[in-house]
Amino acid sequence: MSPLKRKIYDIIFGTETRAGKLFDIALIISVLLSVITVMLESVDSLNVMYAREFEIAEWLFTILFSIELALRLYCVEKKSKYIFSFFGVIDVLSIVPLYLTSIFPALRSFGIIRAFRILRIFRILKLNRYMLASRGLSEALFASRAKIIVFLGVTVTTVFIIGAFMYLIEGEENGFTSIPESIYWAVVTITTVGYGDITPQTVPGKLLSSVLMLVGYGIIVVPTGLVSAEMVNQKLDKRFKTNVCPNCNHAIHTKNAKFCSDCGQELFS
Amino acid sequence: MSPLKRKIYDIIFGTETRAGKLFDIALIISVLLSVITVMLESVDSLNVMYAREFEIAEWLFTILFSIELALRLYCVEKKSKYIFSFFGVIDVLSIVPLYLTSIFPALRSFGIIRAFRILRIFRILKLNRYMLASRGLSEALFASRAKIIVFLGVTVTTVFIIGAFMYLIEGEENGFTSIPESIYWAVVTITTVGYGDITPQTVPGKLLSSVLMLVGYGIIVVPTGLVSAEMVNQKLDKRFKTNVCPNCNHAIHTKNAKFCSDCGQELFS
Amino acid sequence: MSPLKRKIYDIIFGTETRAGKLFDIALIISVLLSVITVMLESVDSLNVMYAREFEIAEWLFTILFSIELALRLYCVEKKSKYIFSFFGVIDVLSIVPLYLTSIFPALRSFGIIRAFRILRIFRILKLNRYMLASRGLSEALFASRAKIIVFLGVTVTTVFIIGAFMYLIEGEENGFTSIPESIYWAVVTITTVGYGDITPQTVPGKLLSSVLMLVGYGIIVVPTGLVSAEMVNQKLDKRFKTNVCPNCNHAIHTKNAKFCSDCGQELFS
Amino acid sequence: MSPLKRKIYDIIFGTETRAGKLFDIALIISVLLSVITVMLESVDSLNVMYAREFEIAEWLFTILFSIELALRLYCVEKKSKYIFSFFGVIDVLSIVPLYLTSIFPALRSFGIIRAFRILRIFRILKLNRYMLASRGLSEALFASRAKIIVFLGVTVTTVFIIGAFMYLIEGEENGFTSIPESIYWAVVTITTVGYGDITPQTVPGKLLSSVLMLVGYGIIVVPTGLVSAEMVNQKLDKRFKTNVCPNCNHAIHTKNAKFCSDCGQELFS
Repeated sequence: MSPLKRKIYDIIFGTETRAGKLFDIALIISVLLSVITVMLESVDSLNVMYAREFEIAEWLFTILFSIELALRLYCVEKKSKYIFSFFGVIDVLSIVPLYLTSIFPALRSFGIIRAFRILRIFRILKLNRYMLASRGLSEALFASRAKIIVFLGVTVTTVFIIGAFMYLIEGEENGFTSIPESIYWAVVTITTVGYGDITPQTVPGKLLSSVLMLVGYGIIVVPTGLVSAEMVNQKLDKRFKTNVCPNCNHAIHTKNAKFCSDCGQELFS
Repeated sequence: MSPLKRKIYDIIFGTETRAGKLFDIALIISVLLSVITVMLESVDSLNVMYAREFEIAEWLFTILFSIELALRLYCVEKKSKYIFSFFGVIDVLSIVPLYLTSIFPALRSFGIIRAFRILRIFRILKLNRYMLASRGLSEALFASRAKIIVFLGVTVTTVFIIGAFMYLIEGEENGFTSIPESIYWAVVTITTVGYGDITPQTVPGKLLSSVLMLVGYGIIVVPTGLVSAEMVNQKLDKRFKTNVCPNCNHAIHTKNAKFCSDCGQELFS
Repeated sequence: MSPLKRKIYDIIFGTETRAGKLFDIALIISVLLSVITVMLESVDSLNVMYAREFEIAEWLFTILFSIELALRLYCVEKKSKYIFSFFGVIDVLSIVPLYLTSIFPALRSFGIIRAFRILRIFRILKLNRYMLASRGLSEALFASRAKIIVFLGVTVTTVFIIGAFMYLIEGEENGFTSIPESIYWAVVTITTVGYGDITPQTVPGKLLSSVLMLVGYGIIVVPTGLVSAEMVNQKLDKRFKTNVCPNCNHAIHTKNAKFCSDCGQELFS
Repeated sequence: MSPLKRKIYDIIFGTETRAGKLFDIALIISVLLSVITVMLESVDSLNVMYAREFEIAEWLFTILFSIELALRLYCVEKKSKYIFSFFGVIDVLSIVPLYLTSIFPALRSFGIIRAFRILRIFRILKLNRYMLASRGLSEALFASRAKIIVFLGVTVTTVFIIGAFMYLIEGEENGFTSIPESIYWAVVTITTVGYGDITPQTVPGKLLSSVLMLVGYGIIVVPTGLVSAEMVNQKLDKRFKTNVCPNCNHAIHTKNAKFCSDCGQELFS
């Protein structure tokens, strides 16, 4: 790798050098500003007044992110691997919309391009680069995945069955116009969101709803307990040294263990 | 057991063999498709347009689940025990509605059969077979049952008393038309669902509601803490076996330890 | 204590004997039935139709609970202490309303007596007798009381300040008619109840609300963590033996400890 | 420090002496009364009727808090340091509004002074003095800060992206008038507040909302687990000192152990 490539790599991928830190801060600010621009552009009154300013800003951000992508591609070894990675895709999605509408102006009149322009909000995912630091979180979620799937399964099953019952009990005249609609209501209720756009009107309906609410209120404790216990477990892992026995490969000994508790082999710290 | 019976048993009850896994996946897909069919059938506009398609699909699923039930009954030893087990009842409920309306067409005009048809959504419970894997969850819930009952008792008592008070304070003119209605409102509020179909209008009513909300907001921590602590306890059980070394009296070894981690002495369980 | 007194005491206060258990079940059923009667009586349509039946039921329950109270007073030693205890007060409140309106029929026309009759719902507190079993719960809450007060203090402070700000930002034309009303809205929001009877209409109001919601969503983890940790602590107390050193009075040794970790004194289990 | 200064210092800053405790209670009551006054003053009907009483009360509280501030400044050594500390600023903000409007009566007609008067509600922060006792809470939050930031980042990212999608799916005719408005809706939904002022109307909108609700319902377990685990960790720190016995290599002694609980060997910290 040439020294220049190396230096650029350190600046845009690294976070240790002064230049690398400045680059990161500049990128975060650019992303936030560009996302705010996309947001404000969707407000009709603002879009009418500042149409020109929005277009200029959009060109600026697109050029900026294009340079960023070009530099990233320049200094990584495996260019195609990067471009198809999560962040590569995000980087491309961030700049494509404007180029497309410039090259094919006819596209502007299609509804699809409006959707496309709005998806520039995905730029916010560029910030995820800075969120991968803490591993413990995803590890705890991963370690609890089997139980979380069971929990989601129980929730979904409950929502389906109560939804079907409420459709029977309340019926179409009370807003429960179909089973999917009733299931939507059940999700709104079990998660305690409670919009109030559909509410039970009959006495048995209100009774069943009350049960569902108490269940939803109680059921949340299960995944909370699961994840808490898993995280406590991680803390305990740090507290009690995970040493590996050279003889039988047994792990997790109590801290400062001198002998393997499985085969009696002497351990060396 | 004959070899054929054995083989069928392995396929439809087992999950180890390749055929067993394929059967499971096919069953999950069938159940999901049939549940989606029941759901879509309840949408009026779809039901009018695709009445015939829905009927065909329903016959297909009923025949499929009939064959499944027949095979299950064929290869289990105690047939009557299976049919009255949880999954046996679900299996029967999954196929009965269509047969009944075919044999007694007069039933179609009764409201009861509509209910019956919708209960086919119970087929989703067939999926529970695949959720029993993780035991720790139900064990933690079971170990905390006494405290959870106390918690529910406190919640229900609170809801009854605050409901009665709100009926007194707000009165029928503000939507609190009776004590059961007020209790329904209290459940909606304490679980933080908050539909907004009934809301306090008077100053003392709003004051009491605020107290109820803060209580409901705070009270949820109790069962969460209970279940979390129980799950941490399970993790600790796995981590430690409280055994004592006969040589050095060292306690707390890792589970299944065969040798003392302090002095290397062999342990006897 | 006479043998008869002793026997009655065992039946109505005890839970070990067969008769004691039957008495408890009968009492629970009576309380639930009487509470349901009070609830249904408040439903106008039912009250008109079954006025006579409700009166008869009310007389039955009042006589029943009067006998219960008489027996309790008969067999406890310190009668005045019982009558002013929590359950004594509840027992008296359960029977007084009907006697009062019978002795002073003029009272019926006062609004106060309606309130009084509804307070018969307090009879549900009689069930609390059966909820005192699990001590760990209240101990964990008690051990965390200082932190829970701090948490409530922070919540109330937040609600007051955001309420005042929202009154300024949204103003009376958007439903935030006064600071107390705004604080009520803030409580509804921070606890995630969200009735929707008052909602922010202006852009800065929506922005501040979003912050409040995210804070309310995040702040709940604090007491949850507190109570969870306290309950884990209790489990650990059970796990690690609390032995007391005969020499220096030091408690909490690791399980199976042979020597006091404070003074080196040999311990005897 | 002169004896008088010392004595005043002990009374208004200390909490040990009888006089100090009385001062604290008097201050808490004054703050609460003054906050209630500010609240009630904002209720139009009360303000018209009791305008004079409110003004008198306001003068009383302002003079009281002025004397308090004067005494605090008198007895602290570094006066300017106190005045620019958190509580110094609160103390000044508590008294300034009334003085300003007295000196410059013209200010009364400006809208800004109304805001200023309402900010007297900040006086409630004076109570925070009494909330700093429990350190464990803020320590646990501080120790989990990195993970909480990641959690907030994930929540905000989710809210932005789902908000943009819902703007596309539902469109302006269903109340999702702009991306910021949609993001406001997404915050209301993910936090389970659910006002119901904006709700999805289309089928894909309801589907996406259901997913968001289940995510919001599930995502809260993450910070709860984090804080719980951190607090359990603190409890474990108090319980165990991980010291090693130089004689028998036994680890995990109770905190402040001076002797090994296994062999009685003296330990050196």
